[in-house]
Amino acid sequence: SNRVSEFCKKISHRVVLIADENVPKGYREKLLADFKLRDIKAELLLFKANEKNKSRKIKEKLEDQMIKMGCGRDTCIIALGGGITTDLAGFIAATYYRGIPAVYVPTTLLSMVDASIGGKTGVNTSFGKNLIGAFYQPRAVFIDTSVLNSLPSSEFKNGLVEMIKHAIIADENYFSNLNGKFNLEEAIAKSCEIKKSIVEQDEKDMGIRQLLNFGHTIGHALESASNYSLRHGEAVALGIIAESYISLKLGLLSQSAYDKIRAIFETHDITVKLKKLDKKTVKNALLMDKKNVEQTPRFVLIKDIGVPHRSTTGYTSGVPEDIINEGLDILC
Amino acid sequence: SNRVSEFCKKISHRVVLIADENVPKGYREKLLADFKLRDIKAELLLFKANEKNKSRKIKEKLEDQMIKMGCGRDTCIIALGGGITTDLAGFIAATYYRGIPAVYVPTTLLSMVDASIGGKTGVNTSFGKNLIGAFYQPRAVFIDTSVLNSLPSSEFKNGLVEMIKHAIIADENYFSNLNGKFNLEEAIAKSCEIKKSIVEQDEKDMGIRQLLNFGHTIGHALESASNYSLRHGEAVALGIIAESYISLKLGLLSQSAYDKIRAIFETHDITVKLKKLDKKTVKNALLMDKKNVEQTPRFVLIKDIGVPHRSTTGYTSGVPEDIINEGLDILC
Repeated sequence: SNRVSEFCKKISHRVVLIADENVPKGYREKLLADFKLRDIKAELLLFKANEKNKSRKIKEKLEDQMIKMGCGRDTCIIALGGGITTDLAGFIAATYYRGIPAVYVPTTLLSMVDASIGGKTGVNTSFGKNLIGAFYQPRAVFIDTSVLNSLPSSEFKNGLVEMIKHAIIADENYFSNLNGKFNLEEAIAKSCEIKKSIVEQDEKDMGIRQLLNFGHTIGHALESASNYSLRHGEAVALGIIAESYISLKLGLLSQSAYDKIRAIFETHDITVKLKKLDKKTVKNALLMDKKNVEQTPRFVLIKDIGVPHRSTTGYTSGVPEDIINEGLDILC
Repeated sequence: SNRVSEFCKKISHRVVLIADENVPKGYREKLLADFKLRDIKAELLLFKANEKNKSRKIKEKLEDQMIKMGCGRDTCIIALGGGITTDLAGFIAATYYRGIPAVYVPTTLLSMVDASIGGKTGVNTSFGKNLIGAFYQPRAVFIDTSVLNSLPSSEFKNGLVEMIKHAIIADENYFSNLNGKFNLEEAIAKSCEIKKSIVEQDEKDMGIRQLLNFGHTIGHALESASNYSLRHGEAVALGIIAESYISLKLGLLSQSAYDKIRAIFETHDITVKLKKLDKKTVKNALLMDKKNVEQTPRFVLIKDIGVPHRSTTGYTSGVPEDIINEGLDILC
C-alpha cells in the first residue's frame, strides 16, 4: 500500500477511495493512513459490491457524493475491491468531470488477472451485464497478493477460471502448468501478460480482443438468466465447457482436447452441474450480447488448447441453433 | 440530408435518430426517408431538449429504449437538434455498449459553431452543468444552414455570442467583421476553424482549450443560479462582459477594448440587464466549476481583443474575491 500512495503523490493531492465494504477494514485503513502520511487528502466511499449494485443508480449516488465533497478534476479515484469495484469506479472516473485519473488496487484473483487489465469499465442494466460503459485506462494497477489470503476459496476459483481461459486461448504450456501444482504469483504474471498482449493489439475490441470472450457468450447469458445467483466463475466455467463442446460438434476441436478441458475444472474442483436450465431464458439473454451482429449471437471457438479458431468473419462465429442447444444441454 | 445518409451507409446498416422534438417534423422525416431509400434501418427517438432533460435520467431512458429495440454495437446514433441534443446523444454514443458511432446534424447556430466541435459530451446534474460526460468524437458533423431559417432570433443570438467569444479570444479581424453586416456562412466557417484549431492542440482540455471557457466561468454560474431561466447565450454574454471587466480591473485590458466588447453586444441587441443578482448563489455555483483548482474558481482573462492572457499557471487565473464581486456588480 506504500507504493500506491507513493505513485498517487505524483499525480494528485487528493484521492477518493471507492471501496467494496467487504475488503478487510484493516487493509483500507492502512491505505488511508499511508495517504495521510504523504499529505494527500484521502476520503472513503464504501459500497456493497455486487452485480445488482454495479448499476447506473449507484454510479449516480457515488458521483453526487463526490460532487458534494467538492472533488474537482484534480481528484484521483482509487478503486479498492474486486472486478465489480474496478469496473464501477473506473467508469465513474471515465465520466466524472469528463474524466479524472483512476488507480486500481484489485483485491480478488479474478480482478487481478482480468478486470484490472485492458480498460473496460461499465455497469449492468436489467437487460444484461456491462451494457453501459467506457474504454478508460487506469493510471496504474497495484497487485498485492497478500490480500488474497483472506479470500474464500470460491473467490479464488472465480479467478482461476479466467486463468484457465487465458491458457486455452493462448498457451498450451501454461494450460499444462495450471493442471498441476503451480506457483500463484508466476501464474498471475502469465495471465496478465497474455491479456495485456491481446488488449494492446486491439484496445477497442474490434478484432482479436474478442478472444477474451471465450466462454463468456454463454457464461454471461447463464449468469443473467440465473439472475446472478450463479457466480461469475461458475458461469464462465460452464460457458467454456459449452463453447468447447460447440467447437467439438462443429468439427473444430478434437475429443481428447475437449476431455482435457473438462478435466482441468475437475482437478480444481470447479464443477457445477445445473439442475435445470431454462433454455428460452438463456437464449433471450444471448440476444442481448454486445458481440451480436444483426441480432445474432457470436461465439469464440477453438481448434485446440492454445489455438483459437479464426473464421472468414474474424475471431467470432455464428453457430446453428441446434448446436447451441446441444452445448447448453450438456450442462445439465 | 442526402449527404448524411450517404455517409452513414459507409459505416452502418442501422441508425437511431435521437432528435429534439422541436426540430421541424418535415426535416426529420426527410432524413428518415433518405435512410430508408439507402436501405438503412432507421428509427426515431424523440425527446424534449431542455437543460433539465439533459440528465442522467433521460440518458438512461433513451439507452433502455435502444436496448429494447435490439440496437447493437453496429448501430449508429444520429443526433438531430441543438447543443443539448448533440451533448446528450453524443454521451449516449460514448457509453452505449462502451461506444458506438455518432453523427451530428446540428440545427441551431450555437450547436453548429460550438457543441458539435471538439468532442465534449455530457449531462447536467442538479449541482451544475456538464458535470458528468466524456470526450468522444462524432464520426462526422453535417452543417446545413437552411435549417436555421426556422429558428427564432433568440436562438440565433445564442450562437452569435459564442462567435463573438471566438473572435475575442483569437481574432481581432473577425471581431471587426462581426461588428458590421457579415456573411453568415463565412462566419460559421471561421468560428468552426477557430474552435477546431484550439481543440486540436488540446483535446483533453488541460491547457489552451480552456480559452474557450472565456465568459463561461461566470456565465455557467449565472445560468445555474438562475435555475436555467437565463438562456445560455444571455448568460455567456453577461459572463464575457463580467470577465472582460475583471481583466480591465486587473490592469490587463484597456478601457477602449473593454468598451468595444460591451458595444458589440449592443450592436446585435444582446443586452440583458439583471434586475437583481444573488451574489451568494452565484458564488456557490462558481465553486462547482470544473476548472476549479483546490476548490477555487479559475477565469480566462484577456489582454486585448484577439489576445488572451497567459499567466504562470497557464490559461486560467485565480482572481481576488473583491474583483469577482466588482465583475458581478456591473451586471445589474
